[in-house]
Order: sequence, then C-alpha cells, then structure tokens
Amino acid sequence: MLVAGVDPGTALTGYGFVSMNGQGKPVVHAYGCIKTPSTDALPQRLVTIYEEFSRLVDEHRPDVIALERVFFNANIKTAMSVGHASGVVMLIAAQRGIELVSYTPLEVKMAVVGYGRAEKRQIQEMVKAILGLEERPSPDDVADALAIALCHLSTAPFRSRVESATQLTRRRSE
Amino acid sequence: MLVAGVDPGTALTGYGFVSMNGQGKPVVHAYGCIKTPSTDALPQRLVTIYEEFSRLVDEHRPDVIALERVFFNANIKTAMSVGHASGVVMLIAAQRGIELVSYTPLEVKMAVVGYGRAEKRQIQEMVKAILGLEERPSPDDVADALAIALCHLSTAPFRSRVESATQLTRRRSE
Repeated sequence: MLVAGVDPGTALTGYGFVSMNGQGKPVVHAYGCIKTPSTDALPQRLVTIYEEFSRLVDEHRPDVIALERVFFNANIKTAMSVGHASGVVMLIAAQRGIELVSYTPLEVKMAVVGYGRAEKRQIQEMVKAILGLEERPSPDDVADALAIALCHLSTAPFRSRVESATQLTRRRSE
Repeated sequence: MLVAGVDPGTALTGYGFVSMNGQGKPVVHAYGCIKTPSTDALPQRLVTIYEEFSRLVDEHRPDVIALERVFFNANIKTAMSVGHASGVVMLIAAQRGIELVSYTPLEVKMAVVGYGRAEKRQIQEMVKAILGLEERPSPDDVADALAIALCHLSTAPFRSRVESATQLTRRRSE
C-alpha cells in the first residue's frame, strides 16, 4: 500500500509518498513541498497546488491520500487557508477515486513520536530516523506530511482488523 | 459585464449570473443552487461542486466571479466548510483566467438593502424586487449569491472610476 501524506496550505503544501515493504519497514518514494509565490493571488496559488499535486499523484499512484484534520484550536484565518488548499487536495483524490483519510495532530504525534505534545523538531527527528533519511526533512510541512503517511501506515493494519472483526460479528449475528 | 455571484458551501452552493443592460438595469441570466447529497463524503461533494459549477461557468462565461468573504465572526467548522467549497470555486475561476472578487457580508447588505444589519428575509425581498423575480429566491444561499452579484455590479463602476483616477494621478506625477 502506497500512502501520500499531505500537509496542505496555500503558501506551502508538504507531501510524502511512503509504502511498507515485505518486512514491515516503511520506504519513502518521494517527498517535498509545493511552494506558491507570495506574489500570486490566492486563486492562482490554488491552481499551482492543483496542477503540481495532480502531477505527483498521477506519477506515484497512491492507494490512499492522508491529510491532517484541522481542529478547533486553529484560528479562522488558518482554517480558511487550510480549507482552501485541502479542498483542492480532496478534489484531486475524489476525481481519481483514491481513498482519503484524515488524522488529528494528536493521532499523528502519538503514532510517530509516541507522545501527543511532541514538538516540531521531535517530529522531524523521528521521521528522519524511521525513514532512514540523511537529513531532517524541512520545512515542517514536509516532515508533517511524512508523519501523516507514517501514521496511516501504522494504524491501517489495526483499522482493517477492527473492520474485519466487525463484519465477522455482523455476519454471525445475522 | 456578466457577473457570477456565488455563495459556496459543501452542502449548498448558491449561484446567480447577472449583467447590467444599457439602461443600467440588472438582468438575471440564471440562478439556482448546487445541492450535494448528505450521504456523500466531503471529497465527493467537492467533485460535484467542481463539475456542476465548471459546467455553469462554461455555459454562461461570466467576466467576473464574486464571492462572499468570510470573516472572523464565523466558527472554525463553518470556515473550513466554506474554505473547502470556495477553494474549488476559486480554482475554477483561475483555471479560466476569470477575475475573482470578494465582498464582506456588510458590503453586500449595504449595496442591496442599504442597511448593514439586514436580515435574510430582507435580502431575499430586495433581490426579488431589484431583479423583478416572481418569487423570493430561496434557499438563502441563492438570494445571497444574487446579492453578491448585485453588489459587484453596483460597486464595479465606482471601483473602475477610482482606479482610472489613481492611474491618472500616477501618470501626472510621473
């Protein structure tokens, strides 16, 4: 299973394509950041994100796109900005029939650092160590995108076991 | 000048295409609402908005798309929802090189009702009267979209005069 983790924003959209090999070890396929010029108006920035992320998705063909779920501690301006950019990312997923999942920042930190109040630096260090990267991924948006992909890879087997068990229970009770 | 006013939301996106005739009277070309099923997941809803609004824009070819600017009195959940849907609308505008403008709810109410604290019902009544419609446009999202288009049509001549005057002053001072 190839997962595209994405940390969407109108100025910077971090992404990381990660899969799990036969030995249960995560393997990174590509990662980076879509930067949009601050001189561009918002609509043009959304077009840049739409075009560049579409190209990346069509190149790597992920099975799942994983996003961070923004919560109520964010301010309205951040929420709108993340809303605009993540709307574009969701559109790209749905246009291709790719499954879309989202995790709270707490779930991502717990999965990657094992500690819900981890700082940005710790997330970068853990992502570097888990994926065997030469350097800490930066800016934060890239490390966060990779962390979201890792979060899905680590929780997906558990989620699918829960779903199978639920179906089995349903079938038995029918 | 044909203006598409849009009130974007993931459940309901109101739209209204309005132009000004030679006598300075607004003429409505089309209006309505893109409804997305509540059983659809958010990404699929964004695809529906993307496809239906793209089709409307390609049919009517507006010169300007006018949106409401969401402000800091909204809550985070509303802001995210409007952010997702308005991101899709902005993308459609920028992909076609259509000018995008936005107005605050206060500007829209002042332009259409002449009163910044106008209620939804008053906006519907004024939009009906100004456009000579048989019935009050509903739901609110449709009336709001038409009101945004009317707001742009009424302020655009003033804005262009300000811009011309600014350019003239610049040219003189050069």
